[in-house]
Amino acid sequence: MVPVDDDALAAGWHELMGRYQRLTCALDRELQAGHGLSASEFEVLQQLSHAPDHSLRMSELAESAHVSQSALSRLVSRLEVDGLLQRSACTQDRRSLFVELTALGVTRYDEARPTQRRVLREDTQQAGGCLQRE
Amino acid sequence: MVPVDDDALAAGWHELMGRYQRLTCALDRELQAGHGLSASEFEVLQQLSHAPDHSLRMSELAESAHVSQSALSRLVSRLEVDGLLQRSACTQDRRSLFVELTALGVTRYDEARPTQRRVLREDTQQAGGCLQRE
Repeated sequence: MVPVDDDALAAGWHELMGRYQRLTCALDRELQAGHGLSASEFEVLQQLSHAPDHSLRMSELAESAHVSQSALSRLVSRLEVDGLLQRSACTQDRRSLFVELTALGVTRYDEARPTQRRVLREDTQQAGGCLQRE
Repeated sequence: MVPVDDDALAAGWHELMGRYQRLTCALDRELQAGHGLSASEFEVLQQLSHAPDHSLRMSELAESAHVSQSALSRLVSRLEVDGLLQRSACTQDRRSLFVELTALGVTRYDEARPTQRRVLREDTQQAGGCLQRE
């Protein structure tokens, strides 16, 4: 690990904040216009689409979608009203609440994915590869 | 620029979201406990402390602190109540609203800076250098 001074760390954090805000804003705009989804809603659908049986515990989903439990409750309620996912209690453990992608949710995610990838690619090209993994 | 496929871009964005959420949460917690500041409030003080005469237009401050104009208005009002900054109209252009760090604001920023740097350093050590600039 290359030593790095505190001001360089702060500059790196400042740059990361900028990228995050810029991309969240672009994703919100494009995903909302094309598919009626926010960036966070897309992320929830994406995490479920990658999960076994398209299903996760609320706590697992909050962690993997990088949202707080309270924000997730609101997101899930919204997506449930649109019929993109459904909640169900686990048969083994009635206290565990699961969330599952519906067929409509799978379709919506498949439709929205190319839009999300395009926004990320355009940003990468403009910013000189800021989202490329090292 | 190394070519990168769409799924790697999406994974990079997902990783960036995670870092952002984790660091914002840690900074909010530590800066609030030690100095009564949120991560965003600290960022506003920091941008002003780097500016000539510790003063910036609201629009410049919003851009450099990576917050929306509406979020900035709320942040500035809060910090003004605490006496850490003050608003003033520009003498040349009455429509431009400036924000200036007060002496108390300079002191608070100087006190809080080591805490912010410590949180960033601890995260970097744990995460293997995620905030090091390339």
